[in-house]
Amino acid sequence: MLEELKQAVYEANMELPKRKLITYTWGNVSGRDFEKGYFVIKPSGVDYNKLTPDDMVVMDLEGNRIEGKYKPSSDTPTHIELYKKYPEIGGIVHTHSPQATAWAQAGRDIPLYGTTHADYFYGPIPCARSLTEEEIQGEYEANTGKVIIETFTKDDKNPMYTPGVLCCNHGVFTWGKDAAEAVHNAVVVEEVARMATLTELINPQVKPAPDSIRDKHFYRKHGANAYYGQ
Amino acid sequence: MLEELKQAVYEANMELPKRKLITYTWGNVSGRDFEKGYFVIKPSGVDYNKLTPDDMVVMDLEGNRIEGKYKPSSDTPTHIELYKKYPEIGGIVHTHSPQATAWAQAGRDIPLYGTTHADYFYGPIPCARSLTEEEIQGEYEANTGKVIIETFTKDDKNPMYTPGVLCCNHGVFTWGKDAAEAVHNAVVVEEVARMATLTELINPQVKPAPDSIRDKHFYRKHGANAYYGQ
Amino acid sequence: MLEELKQAVYEANMELPKRKLITYTWGNVSGRDFEKGYFVIKPSGVDYNKLTPDDMVVMDLEGNRIEGKYKPSSDTPTHIELYKKYPEIGGIVHTHSPQATAWAQAGRDIPLYGTTHADYFYGPIPCARSLTEEEIQGEYEANTGKVIIETFTKDDKNPMYTPGVLCCNHGVFTWGKDAAEAVHNAVVVEEVARMATLTELINPQVKPAPDSIRDKHFYRKHGANAYYGQ
Amino acid sequence: MLEELKQAVYEANMELPKRKLITYTWGNVSGRDFEKGYFVIKPSGVDYNKLTPDDMVVMDLEGNRIEGKYKPSSDTPTHIELYKKYPEIGGIVHTHSPQATAWAQAGRDIPLYGTTHADYFYGPIPCARSLTEEEIQGEYEANTGKVIIETFTKDDKNPMYTPGVLCCNHGVFTWGKDAAEAVHNAVVVEEVARMATLTELINPQVKPAPDSIRDKHFYRKHGANAYYGQ
Repeated sequence: MLEELKQAVYEANMELPKRKLITYTWGNVSGRDFEKGYFVIKPSGVDYNKLTPDDMVVMDLEGNRIEGKYKPSSDTPTHIELYKKYPEIGGIVHTHSPQATAWAQAGRDIPLYGTTHADYFYGPIPCARSLTEEEIQGEYEANTGKVIIETFTKDDKNPMYTPGVLCCNHGVFTWGKDAAEAVHNAVVVEEVARMATLTELINPQVKPAPDSIRDKHFYRKHGANAYYGQ
Repeated sequence: MLEELKQAVYEANMELPKRKLITYTWGNVSGRDFEKGYFVIKPSGVDYNKLTPDDMVVMDLEGNRIEGKYKPSSDTPTHIELYKKYPEIGGIVHTHSPQATAWAQAGRDIPLYGTTHADYFYGPIPCARSLTEEEIQGEYEANTGKVIIETFTKDDKNPMYTPGVLCCNHGVFTWGKDAAEAVHNAVVVEEVARMATLTELINPQVKPAPDSIRDKHFYRKHGANAYYGQ
Repeated sequence: MLEELKQAVYEANMELPKRKLITYTWGNVSGRDFEKGYFVIKPSGVDYNKLTPDDMVVMDLEGNRIEGKYKPSSDTPTHIELYKKYPEIGGIVHTHSPQATAWAQAGRDIPLYGTTHADYFYGPIPCARSLTEEEIQGEYEANTGKVIIETFTKDDKNPMYTPGVLCCNHGVFTWGKDAAEAVHNAVVVEEVARMATLTELINPQVKPAPDSIRDKHFYRKHGANAYYGQ
Repeated sequence: MLEELKQAVYEANMELPKRKLITYTWGNVSGRDFEKGYFVIKPSGVDYNKLTPDDMVVMDLEGNRIEGKYKPSSDTPTHIELYKKYPEIGGIVHTHSPQATAWAQAGRDIPLYGTTHADYFYGPIPCARSLTEEEIQGEYEANTGKVIIETFTKDDKNPMYTPGVLCCNHGVFTWGKDAAEAVHNAVVVEEVARMATLTELINPQVKPAPDSIRDKHFYRKHGANAYYGQ
């Protein structure tokens, strides 16, 4: 079942090592079938060199394995929380990509310093708070998703305008309309993180870019008046 | 038409990912035909893996598409401003290469710290000011070109002696006698930016190199008394 | 003799340049045969391009060469000290991988800043003290092992829960249940070191991750209640 | 003539881009024939992709071109100064490798922070002073060699124990018993420079490694009592 989606999710997963977002198996990608309400996700702990499209696991949003010979990624409950809350999300990525994870470990939002950032994110890339001891000892992976949602809810952020988040002391989640776009956004976060670190080293007093730059670049590519690209 | 130039501009564009100056489609190269007064530029938003010489777009300096099935790069009006103002420029590159873009985001000129820099740039690589809100909301891409020109005009800089510029909160433009030389200069700016950041980390009190070093290295390679190379 | 182990140790050694942990011959891997009590180690100073499984040297724990046409790695006495003290270790790696060696040169433990670290190390990656002048002028390589053991003994650290160490002003040793796992841990230390440096640049006031994060991630993958992976 | 040496010098030159020490043509290698007293050097400004062993230029120590269709590297007079002063040098490399050039631009010696450094350099890698305006306007390239020699003479340094130098605001020269060893040392300087920068970022109060570490590692590999390698 869902052969086409399995193939797409497989390819999206294989982009992670190719784009140098992951070391070993430190990441996972899933993609949603909007009709059936299922999603397809990488199996847990399988070597990328041995992965095939058939190894992908089909899950429902209650966490039941519908098909697949392997266990799904241990981060599956985080994916489920995001899919349940945000019906527009069609693909999710988790990585420990080093430049972005350093911001997550530093516990800081990535400020919007330029147009590379503003072409994809309408404002800072937020860093979600640390989980409490209770949240960690409870349903840790599901609670990770809940804390991400809390981060977006409290500031009334549109997840399609901020298609990614840092998790404090942990790593990165990104998403998009499908698995491929979610991976694209994971590449963007890593690149933007790299530039932001350098920017602050070069000018420790630097201020975020003006809102007019942010608005111009974001809306040049997104929304009704976009004119960038074909 | 202009098959040879299209091939050259295509090849120059393909150098950008190969030289790690761009991620995805974050850049563009154009080249001018000095006889016809047209220029050839990369189409907007087309994947580099799928680009062919035939996809290149032929434009005139009034912004009319003379030939090509795709829309030209959305940065085309910036290229037009520079071609109109500087008749000696035969090729232009735009990138968000990370080391140089960090300086653009930091809002700082890259100081001339050594001979690598002085072999190509006769002085600092300037950072053009941010556009005003009016300039951004108006003809943004054309105004980007106008602010670059303002940067060179106010300091009476020779664009062939300073073949590139940072755009505050944005990225890099470089140029040259043709598309290939413009790409060469984009590689130089990225490399020089990397070294300048490291230089300041190693010695926060560092001063720019003496003018005599700058003069020696620049004029060893440029102008009537050049003796470097074949 | 020990053909299978020689092949495994050879492959583990070849991972070092492939994973960019070493330049030239700046590293070595060994693996132990638990039955015979011998171990197999890379020969000293042989170019990685010319290395074959047959070049591996078989040693006993008294430092006698049992088989092999070359001299064993000059760091062999360090490996011997660790194998003798820790019977559960089946493979050892030494590198000068740059990010981790910078922490060794800085004389600092790598703090546990996030889950990437906690998935493999239950606490900071310790930096062993410098050897005294007497220790250096005596049996330097054996004393390097003894100072590593001292570091683990004084803090009562379990070497399987902290499968690696920095040697002050020197480089990195990691280990594991076999040579392949030891190399895996060497990759982890390098990656964790890179992220830790960036983390402190981004937030000079950063604190280590909470103990609850460390416990969750380490025990998710290790010990009786592990549930990560297949 | 000197076909074998031309081949060796050609191969040594081709190592520079392969080892990422140079961008474009920003470097050169030469090698000496001790019998004839000639040396072979890369031609000036020829693209590395087009270089062949036959393109190498044979020179004498008075700067006469003995054989070769191209002009020798414009840095040839620097090589000549070093070959004339130090009869034990058999190969010389010049690069603008970024990590080491950043130290040259910063005007600082690279301190000996660890064994990676001490395995090759018996003490700091010195940064030669800037040339005076007169020296720059005179025989610039020869004067570059003279200032390197001054740096070694004033501190009574053995050039075979310190096989490389930074030139302030410029780049790196390394040498060795032949062209291949000179390139090896150029790789070492770049790697040691990278680690030294990181070391100071991680611990701004760091001190150089103890002399006993320096002595142990240097003499483990060099001199009458060396025991490292085969």
